[in-house]
This record gives sequence, structure tokens and C-alpha cells, in this order.
Amino acid sequence: MTQELKFAIHLAKKAGDLLVEGFNSCFLKNPQIYKRDEITNMDLESEKFIIRLIKKKYPDHKIISEECGKVEGKSDFVWIIDPLDGTKYYSAGIKLCNVLVSLWKANTPLVGVVYMPFTGDIYWAEKGGGAFFNYKKITVSKVSSFKESVVYIDSTRSNQLNKKEVSLAGKRLGLILGNSYRLRGISLGPIPLCYIAQGMAEAFFDLAGKERIWDLAAGFVIAKEAGAKITSLDGKFHGQDISNVVITNGKIHTEFLKLLNSA
Amino acid sequence: MTQELKFAIHLAKKAGDLLVEGFNSCFLKNPQIYKRDEITNMDLESEKFIIRLIKKKYPDHKIISEECGKVEGKSDFVWIIDPLDGTKYYSAGIKLCNVLVSLWKANTPLVGVVYMPFTGDIYWAEKGGGAFFNYKKITVSKVSSFKESVVYIDSTRSNQLNKKEVSLAGKRLGLILGNSYRLRGISLGPIPLCYIAQGMAEAFFDLAGKERIWDLAAGFVIAKEAGAKITSLDGKFHGQDISNVVITNGKIHTEFLKLLNSA
Repeated sequence: MTQELKFAIHLAKKAGDLLVEGFNSCFLKNPQIYKRDEITNMDLESEKFIIRLIKKKYPDHKIISEECGKVEGKSDFVWIIDPLDGTKYYSAGIKLCNVLVSLWKANTPLVGVVYMPFTGDIYWAEKGGGAFFNYKKITVSKVSSFKESVVYIDSTRSNQLNKKEVSLAGKRLGLILGNSYRLRGISLGPIPLCYIAQGMAEAFFDLAGKERIWDLAAGFVIAKEAGAKITSLDGKFHGQDISNVVITNGKIHTEFLKLLNSA
Repeated sequence: MTQELKFAIHLAKKAGDLLVEGFNSCFLKNPQIYKRDEITNMDLESEKFIIRLIKKKYPDHKIISEECGKVEGKSDFVWIIDPLDGTKYYSAGIKLCNVLVSLWKANTPLVGVVYMPFTGDIYWAEKGGGAFFNYKKITVSKVSSFKESVVYIDSTRSNQLNKKEVSLAGKRLGLILGNSYRLRGISLGPIPLCYIAQGMAEAFFDLAGKERIWDLAAGFVIAKEAGAKITSLDGKFHGQDISNVVITNGKIHTEFLKLLNSA
């Protein structure tokens, strides 16, 4: 295990501890502004903590984070984090949320950690080192036909699509429904990627094309190291440009791309 | 709190304890037969435990349960249970599952409990007594337009639909996507109903029309008591016949029914 992965795990666990401690006293920041895209004081606490530790250990590294946006640095290395994925659940008192920590070198994902502070469940991976769930190695499923596949879609920000885009997305949804084993959609960004990594699901598609990099960055490494394939609709990997990203267990990738592109 | 609700909570918590105890030693029963609809030894342990206690306390009552099917009884009262909702997660070592206990009198839902053994989170409700999440009263959201609504669909058994049914379901999906704030679908039956009850979501639709009563029975009581409306596509409540059930916060019900029926 590299120093970077060890550090990423440390960050995620310690930030998770903060979230558990602050659970019962958390409050919404400016609810009149953010409405359904809530931010709590604990998103900010967790972010501040993670950024402080990264800056101390790797002062040259860049940081991209959900709440604060960007921290510039001279290095090609960039930490992509979500200090509290699942704010909506957290602020409603539901013990379902993640801390996401990921390290990339420019467009190459290197390290990914997804930590669930309320259950202690943890996924991690690093380039070339395999993917792990609670210290056990995980791999993608052997399912090789789309008909047998569990497919997750993410429709985040679907309400921002124009009429033509809605029509295309609707067609794709219908095609997935009619040709897969199950259609699902959860609102925790990296979770479907972790499920693909451990063989619980076969495919993921960013239906609205509006996912943000901090939601998926850590999951990319975990899925990839477990054997998943990650591309855009053109079959190529575009690094941090993740719009309409398609992730599968690798065995149904061509079939899924063909289906999506036939809409 | 009635004796029946107290008993239902007791059942759910004790069965949940069993599930936590057996977590690391659970194994799949006949995986070659059940494939993706897994059953573990712990589904059966939990079921046996719950049924034994119900039979002892209410020997005349009927029981409907996921694994064993039906236990007949002379009374109109029927306990509808799922001893382990989320077997797929449980058997993969993911700490995400529920115990579902519900009491109906013929077609009238009376008591509902949804318990998450790994986090201790609990929802309960009884007819006329309001709905609760972790001992706090909950109510549906005030959202009054479909455009602002978070909508959960359940596409369980969508692979069993024929071509015409797939086409209709696909149209409905497209309409929901194009007219709502968010489209979601989680594979834990009662959870969207609990989210509607606590104002985290506004609507639920059984898209494939193939949901089973034990997945939703407990959630019905919780949603209803929090102010939700439950009908079929014709706007009427059909009791245990839950095919294509529509559940909303009440304020967008007519709008949602109109949209679904326009497909």
C-alpha cells in the first residue's frame, strides 16, 4: 500500500469520525439559498479538516472539493474530495452518507477511498493494486449479457435538461428498462460504482450528463481496479471530463454503448 | 402506543439483532436455484423467529411472509413481514438491510415498522397515531408541484414485462424524467415510502406493477400516517392488491396520476 493510499484512508476515516460526532448537532447553512442542494456546517467542517491535512502533507498538490471549489497548486497531482456525500440524508438524521477521497495525476486516477462513517464500511483502491471492500479483494461480476445486467442510472440535474435532451434521455431509459435485468438509481454518487466493483451490479450511466467529478472520482479507481471499464459514449476515456460516463463490468460494455447510441 | 405496535417493534428489533449476530457467518441457500433472488440461512432464521413469536401471541392471526408464503388463521388480522429486506446487500457484506413488520385487518393497514439493524434507525406508525422516525414525529413535505418533486420508481421484475408493457413503462419513465425534479430508484422496497413520510421525497410509483405486498405493507402505514396518499392508477385504494401503486405526499397526487395516465 502506497503512502498516498494510506493517507487517503486516514483522511476519510478521520473526517468520518467528525461527521459521526457532529451528527446530532448539525444544522443547514442558508437553507433559503440552497434549498434541495443542502449544505450543513458539517460539510464545511469535514472539508476544512481534509484540506488542512492535504495542504500540510502535500503543499504543492491541487485540490478539487464539492463545497470550496478549487485549491490551486504547482503539481500535476490533484486531490478530488467530497467531504460529505449524502448531505440530504445526513441532515435528515438518516445514517447513510460517505466521505470520498481520491488522488489523480492530471487525468489519471491513482487512489480512491469511499468510507461510510456510520457502518464503518470502506472501499479503497490504487492504480495497479486491486480494489478492496472491508480489507477483502473485490472483482466485477462475470455477467456477459446486458439482458442479465443490473443497471444504475444517475439522473442528477435532469431538471436542467432542455426538451430535446429530455427526449433523448427518456428514450435511453426506455431502452435500458426493456433490455436489462433491473434498472436502478441511487442518489449517492459513487455507490453504484462500488457495486459494480464488487459484482452487485453490471453497469452505470450518467443519464443527464451532469454528474460532478467529486461524486465519481474515488469510485472510478475502485471500479477500474476491480476490472470495470470506464468510457464516454464514444468508447474513449476522457479523464476528468465525465459527462455521460458509461461504466460496466467490461463484459457488456460494447453492448451497452451500442444500445445507448441507438437512441 | 397499542400493544400490537409495541409487539411489532419488539419483533423487528429482536429479528434485527439476529441478523447482526449472523452477519459474518451467513451463507446462500441453493444459489444455483435462486441466482439473483438470493435467500440466505439468515432470512430463514429471522422468519422462523418472527413467525414463532406471532403464533405464540396471536395464534388466530394469519401471516404472509416473503420466504414461507402464508400461514393461515381464523382471524381477519394478518401480519405481513419481510424478515430480511435487502438480502443481496446482506449476503455481500454490505450493512444495508431492513426488517419489515406490519399488521393489517383484511385490507386495512394498521401497524408498520421498518427497522435497520446496522444503524438502529427505525420508522413506525399505527392507524390514527401518526408516524415516527427514531422517536420523532414525521410528516410529508409541503411540495405542491410535480416539477419540484423527487420521484422514486420501483422497476422490480421489469424483465418479466412483455413488449407492450415495456413500451408503456418506458413512456412513463420519460414523462417522469421530463416533468419532475429528480428520478430515483432504490432496491429496498419500503425506503422510498419512508422518505416520502419524512419529506425527503414526494412520490413513488410501482413502474413494473410487480411489487410484492411484504415489500410495501409496513411502508404503507408509515407513509399514510405521515400524510401520504396511496392509490392505484384509478385513484382508488385497493388494499393488498398493490399493483402499480402510486404514493405521494398528497399535494401532487392528482398531477402525478394525470401524468402517468397520459402515457
